[in-house]
Amino acid sequence: MRWRNYFIPTAKETPKDATAPSHILMLRAGLVRQLAAGVYTFLPLGWRALRKVEQIIREEMDRAGAIELKMPCLTPLELWEETGRAAAMGDVLLRLAGAPDDWRSGLVLGPTHEEIITEIARAYLSSYKQLPINLYQIQAKFRGEARPKSGVLRTREFLMKDAYSFHVDKASLDDGYRLMYDAYCRAFARCGLPYLAVEADSGAMGGDVSHEFMVLTDAGEDRVALSENRDYAANLERATAVFQSGHEGTEARRHEEAAAVREVHTPNAGKIDDVCAFLGTQPRQMIKTLVYTGVEESAGQSAGAGARAAATARRLVIVALVRGDHEVNEIKLRKVAGVPIELAAPDLIEQVTGAKVGFAGPQGLVDRIDKLIIDRDVTVMSDAATGANKTDYHVLGVQPGRDFPLSGPKVVVADIRNVVDGDLSPTGSGAPLRLRTAIEVGHVFKLGTKYSDAMRAHYLGPDGKPAPFIMGCYGIGVTRVLAAVIESHHDDGGIIWPMSVAPFQVLVMSIDPRDEEVVRLAEQVHAQLEAAGIESLYDDRDERAGFKFKDADLVGIPVRIVIGKKSLAAGGVEFQLRSRPEKTVLSPDQAVSRAIDHVRAELARLSSAT
Amino acid sequence: MRWRNYFIPTAKETPKDATAPSHILMLRAGLVRQLAAGVYTFLPLGWRALRKVEQIIREEMDRAGAIELKMPCLTPLELWEETGRAAAMGDVLLRLAGAPDDWRSGLVLGPTHEEIITEIARAYLSSYKQLPINLYQIQAKFRGEARPKSGVLRTREFLMKDAYSFHVDKASLDDGYRLMYDAYCRAFARCGLPYLAVEADSGAMGGDVSHEFMVLTDAGEDRVALSENRDYAANLERATAVFQSGHEGTEARRHEEAAAVREVHTPNAGKIDDVCAFLGTQPRQMIKTLVYTGVEESAGQSAGAGARAAATARRLVIVALVRGDHEVNEIKLRKVAGVPIELAAPDLIEQVTGAKVGFAGPQGLVDRIDKLIIDRDVTVMSDAATGANKTDYHVLGVQPGRDFPLSGPKVVVADIRNVVDGDLSPTGSGAPLRLRTAIEVGHVFKLGTKYSDAMRAHYLGPDGKPAPFIMGCYGIGVTRVLAAVIESHHDDGGIIWPMSVAPFQVLVMSIDPRDEEVVRLAEQVHAQLEAAGIESLYDDRDERAGFKFKDADLVGIPVRIVIGKKSLAAGGVEFQLRSRPEKTVLSPDQAVSRAIDHVRAELARLSSAT
Repeated sequence: MRWRNYFIPTAKETPKDATAPSHILMLRAGLVRQLAAGVYTFLPLGWRALRKVEQIIREEMDRAGAIELKMPCLTPLELWEETGRAAAMGDVLLRLAGAPDDWRSGLVLGPTHEEIITEIARAYLSSYKQLPINLYQIQAKFRGEARPKSGVLRTREFLMKDAYSFHVDKASLDDGYRLMYDAYCRAFARCGLPYLAVEADSGAMGGDVSHEFMVLTDAGEDRVALSENRDYAANLERATAVFQSGHEGTEARRHEEAAAVREVHTPNAGKIDDVCAFLGTQPRQMIKTLVYTGVEESAGQSAGAGARAAATARRLVIVALVRGDHEVNEIKLRKVAGVPIELAAPDLIEQVTGAKVGFAGPQGLVDRIDKLIIDRDVTVMSDAATGANKTDYHVLGVQPGRDFPLSGPKVVVADIRNVVDGDLSPTGSGAPLRLRTAIEVGHVFKLGTKYSDAMRAHYLGPDGKPAPFIMGCYGIGVTRVLAAVIESHHDDGGIIWPMSVAPFQVLVMSIDPRDEEVVRLAEQVHAQLEAAGIESLYDDRDERAGFKFKDADLVGIPVRIVIGKKSLAAGGVEFQLRSRPEKTVLSPDQAVSRAIDHVRAELARLSSAT
Repeated sequence: MRWRNYFIPTAKETPKDATAPSHILMLRAGLVRQLAAGVYTFLPLGWRALRKVEQIIREEMDRAGAIELKMPCLTPLELWEETGRAAAMGDVLLRLAGAPDDWRSGLVLGPTHEEIITEIARAYLSSYKQLPINLYQIQAKFRGEARPKSGVLRTREFLMKDAYSFHVDKASLDDGYRLMYDAYCRAFARCGLPYLAVEADSGAMGGDVSHEFMVLTDAGEDRVALSENRDYAANLERATAVFQSGHEGTEARRHEEAAAVREVHTPNAGKIDDVCAFLGTQPRQMIKTLVYTGVEESAGQSAGAGARAAATARRLVIVALVRGDHEVNEIKLRKVAGVPIELAAPDLIEQVTGAKVGFAGPQGLVDRIDKLIIDRDVTVMSDAATGANKTDYHVLGVQPGRDFPLSGPKVVVADIRNVVDGDLSPTGSGAPLRLRTAIEVGHVFKLGTKYSDAMRAHYLGPDGKPAPFIMGCYGIGVTRVLAAVIESHHDDGGIIWPMSVAPFQVLVMSIDPRDEEVVRLAEQVHAQLEAAGIESLYDDRDERAGFKFKDADLVGIPVRIVIGKKSLAAGGVEFQLRSRPEKTVLSPDQAVSRAIDHVRAELARLSSAT
């Protein structure tokens, strides 16, 4: 391809509002253009690279036995109502504008396709003989993202690979899950991504087991806990650490030695830092007391004959305790609580504690609430400070087990906090955990029967009886992979493409493009490369050398062959890799064969990596 | 690919509500599934075929020098407002539901992308040196189709290839248009489509010259006039015929010999057929008199200093005359009228003619209206019948030129009717025109500066002065191409795929799939084909032979190799083409090499066709 005949609108200036390197470089190298907030056009160079990512993913999915199809962007609202996600997803679901009786108002743009594929399975997969099966697509997704940011990392329209597997039992699901996990490792490795598979929470997708594929970079929005020896990696939402019971000795001895609780006047000090400053203590000596409400659904039996079980909802008051320097992990807390939870409103907190917000403590609280959930680390504290359940007062010398119970019918001790830097890996290796920022590029889930139950999607087993499909689902953010590649492969001058996803493999550059011999050789080198099946971009522009070199660095084609009067005088053409500073003068033929060899070797290296 | 591991949900029954062969066969062969009215999932086999069509189109676009990119589905309403198409397209534009101040209400789903690409050109194409350029994408389109029908032929979401070219002058546009025209011919020929390029009206896209690419089939919704010797083809909207001035002699002689106009009481006979029955005459002896209104915009100057020109609209009354057996072509009429037109409301008709609807005639009308537009064929009528401008009365013996003017300041004679079967080709060859039904699969337009003017999209010329881009646009309905291929290639048993778009090239079928030798040979043949790079589908299902043969016919893979105990007894395997009845028994190796040869020969044949 000749640069002059192509369309690469590079820019010198760093675009305003762009901070993530991938965002800046995708704009500057002319890969994308923003059309609206969170909505991007992929310009020719970006589209070429994105199609390479797409094709690598497709090949690895096919190799794993998954079958490609294509579901539409427009999906019927009624399917989202069957599973309750029309309500659960709320504003994330983008609906078409239309009067209530108009067909438009019955359509939403698919943010994911579990409901759609389950409808297809329900229609066509009638027998266990058709299982297991894995169906996937590479399709645009739409989400009502409130705050799009970081270029194509968080958008309202993006390209996704989503796969869905259907199984008869857990063992088959495990096999299917492993196939996808391995396929993801291969796909990301082929893209040149330094990925990390981490344990993850399943979140709104349902299901119990899941892994995320992460790429560490400051531009990410996910937090990952990673042990220093790499024996453990998990999303902060799920990460846990070894419980260190401490060195304080037995509870009984501590209590004997300890003084009684003392009340201290702490006017207007409702926040941890203020209290610590006031009391001259440390956050790790404080107990944070957080009041939540939860909604418990209890099945009741209606009186009428043949009536269906009716659900009655009761509001629960749940109090969570964590150390002052720790943060409650609400995902963990929700699991322990067994019901959906949210922070209580101020009036309820006052009603429960008898004090304004900021002065709650666990003493004497258990009789007034439904559940007390205590983080493990709180149980080994002694001589702690906490709220006095009295406005503007705190207490010192609190002893867990003495001043509030650590067991009993309403009490649960569990891990309900986020891990912190320096916590020890839960593997027991003793390696400390480090918190890192990352981009999520893929996610594999075991869904179980969440969707097949809700949509009554059944197959007939060997015994002739219907059973719900056991499902898995597996997503890759195709657009995000491209951004993550750039996050991982760039320098101050621009992108440094891995060979596998580079929009072109070799850049042939003529400086002195008005010199006949230069042009003749450049055309020859370009033609030889193309004849060998190499994707060559020939910068034939009549521009200054410095300008062309800057563009070359920015656009980041991995191999560069520069032809100019200077190189000809030195005996040939200049061969350089974008990733290395060394330049070598070679004969044109040598440069061509070295380029071909390098392209093939790099592709082979990336393909064999895991 | 093994059939058992794949997903081809074939069906025996003809789906209800499906009448077009492509619709029936796409559903029965398991190519698509309807998810909502006019919204389809492409199941694996359909998706494979669609991707082949897509790739053929991509290759031909690339070969013609067009550059691929990808614009988003979500587009900003404000761009559609810049060109006035937000209003002009009305319900066709699908909008997102959202409160007036919400970002959602500022987005619409792209039904086409002229506005978006023009915004990109405006941003990046600043110099004549960057022109000409042709940018294209293959992308989902969304249209608020009121009545989706015929499967994927008329839908609310579909795949389209849309290209846009930018030029400095008309000559460059002509070159670019020709490049696309030729690329389309190659692409359709490679898909095995018996296409026809016809002259077309440019319609709502703007611009002046356009061609449509049509495939003749009863399932189509377009009407094409095609001369018997194929020297002329045009969309009915645009088709014209040679004007035959008839044999009645001079106007003057006719008038001398003719009797005066006679009024006849024709109670309740307001329609042509009723009047003819009443008067004992033929529709071709009648003059249809149709009253239209048009809106003329005249630029006026507002009084205030510096005020912009304000448009004042005046409503025009326009009367059109055509022969009773002809139909007004409103596209032609609109062009002659020079303003947008619509049929007048009954009260205006009564006001203009003095009679109820159905009794209008041209006599004495010209003074009461703004324009009288007479079809050429009316001028050579004599002794005609028409309405009397008096409720329940018609007149006989009407002489054009005597009883109403054929010239004058308000009178225009022009071709304003649809051609009819038997009209003569406008080339003058004397060949009669035939009307045929067709599917439009592609359309090439010369847009001119419609969009660049509206959006102030300018480049700087060699003289340093800004000028609007001269544009062309070029669309292919990718999904429609697939349906058109099936419309053109099927029999009672199912699809007969052209090799180029067949989802698989060879079907290997084991009948007696429990026989060891049969299975061994089938696996061997399948493996040899795959090793040779042939796309082989191996029907390894343990089903009855009759069932498998029916599926094979339905799914329509072009080459079939059948292996069973019977064929083994006859000395080998059975080789058959889907398009031919003959079956040949060959050795397995012979069958494999014949299959490979046939696949390659067919692909070469389709590639070299135009």
